[in-house]
Amino acid sequence: MTFSATILTLYPEMFPGSLGVSLAGRALAEGKWHCDTVQIRDFAQDKHRTVDDTPAGGGVGMVLKADVLARAIDHARERSPDCPVLAMTPRGKPITQARIRALAAGPGVTILCGRFEGFDERIFAGRAVEEVAVGDIVLSGGEPAALMILDACIRLLPGVMGATESGHEESFEQELLEYPQFTRPVEWEGRTIPEVLRSGDHAKIAAWRKQKAEDDTRLRRPDLWERHRGVRDQSASGARHEDKDQAQ
Amino acid sequence: MTFSATILTLYPEMFPGSLGVSLAGRALAEGKWHCDTVQIRDFAQDKHRTVDDTPAGGGVGMVLKADVLARAIDHARERSPDCPVLAMTPRGKPITQARIRALAAGPGVTILCGRFEGFDERIFAGRAVEEVAVGDIVLSGGEPAALMILDACIRLLPGVMGATESGHEESFEQELLEYPQFTRPVEWEGRTIPEVLRSGDHAKIAAWRKQKAEDDTRLRRPDLWERHRGVRDQSASGARHEDKDQAQ
Repeated sequence: MTFSATILTLYPEMFPGSLGVSLAGRALAEGKWHCDTVQIRDFAQDKHRTVDDTPAGGGVGMVLKADVLARAIDHARERSPDCPVLAMTPRGKPITQARIRALAAGPGVTILCGRFEGFDERIFAGRAVEEVAVGDIVLSGGEPAALMILDACIRLLPGVMGATESGHEESFEQELLEYPQFTRPVEWEGRTIPEVLRSGDHAKIAAWRKQKAEDDTRLRRPDLWERHRGVRDQSASGARHEDKDQAQ
Repeated sequence: MTFSATILTLYPEMFPGSLGVSLAGRALAEGKWHCDTVQIRDFAQDKHRTVDDTPAGGGVGMVLKADVLARAIDHARERSPDCPVLAMTPRGKPITQARIRALAAGPGVTILCGRFEGFDERIFAGRAVEEVAVGDIVLSGGEPAALMILDACIRLLPGVMGATESGHEESFEQELLEYPQFTRPVEWEGRTIPEVLRSGDHAKIAAWRKQKAEDDTRLRRPDLWERHRGVRDQSASGARHEDKDQAQ
């Protein structure tokens, strides 16, 4: 099955961009995903091909018009009816690795990229569009965020990463950061690889890595650590619940 | 002054990529920023130009070698000694709009992009590299995250956005989301622009927007709302402190 990426944008020439190179580029050439762009301006209906207008209530910048966006989205939905539509906006829900996994397991994704001051708010409820943020920073448009989301999805598609890598532990599994990595030389500028990693004792190595992942998450990302404890408590209470079921 | 962007990567052909188009592309053509890439592989010293090795302690994937990375970073620092060096890694500190503003106000930024399983951990302390994350998702490499950070910086450079736009309120100012935007038509598919925005009463419009920004931040981003309350309390206690100073 080919993963379908559709990008609604005023700058279709930005795609596939960096996704035409390396891992994603090879997957594109092999037909593991395909990249369609939709020029939003093609759905303007006046002779000036107007896509935006001034903000209601005043203010600087321009706002993308709901009617033009709706026609562009309807066109994309006709072509890919089963793909969720995401809009890139700093007002959106922060994207998570769990959402990326769900997207990568599906038929594809349609991504709406804004420019100017943003979208007419009515488009989100009017066309069931999911508002998504990637990092708490403001961009000149949604396109770089779309490239990031697509990259994260594509690496998870079947056959894109090596089989050995794809099932592997990585950051944000169970809401934890990944443990730190080291490689040769054993000593570099007076800094040595932690001794446990050179011990050959697989159980001790696994325990050290788990501890480091937990310590680093707690210290660096207290927000993630809280979520991890939630996940852990839930699985623990699920386990207790199963015990109870078995006892009955 | 020209903002200097240097990217250390195994895929220099990914740059300027999407940043060669639109707002960032015009700024590049006008010399408001320049984009240098450094091929990490050029700093390998063996005949196979090896940049990575297996993880100490075992595991899948490959880890970028500290000695090779160090030579590449030293080379970039010689060219741009005053630019901070950021490494793109999911283990890093989440980038904020405040950090973007600080970077954009400086001479430039050097960004280290990884591939494979990541970097030998010793490079971060060994070369004073700042570990930075953009969104809690895992990429095939740091390059798409680097494009996002550069886009966010470039739009803030003097003369890149129109003068009217650059001083403008936007998301993440004071840790708040931006208020929703609307534009004509007044009614679209039965959905109307909120009446207050059509009132012409600037004070009421400003109050409504402030209230919406606060409500949406509280509902959509409780994490940001907590930080906003911290910022607000700090400025309030600063104000109280000033009152006291004046009273003395």
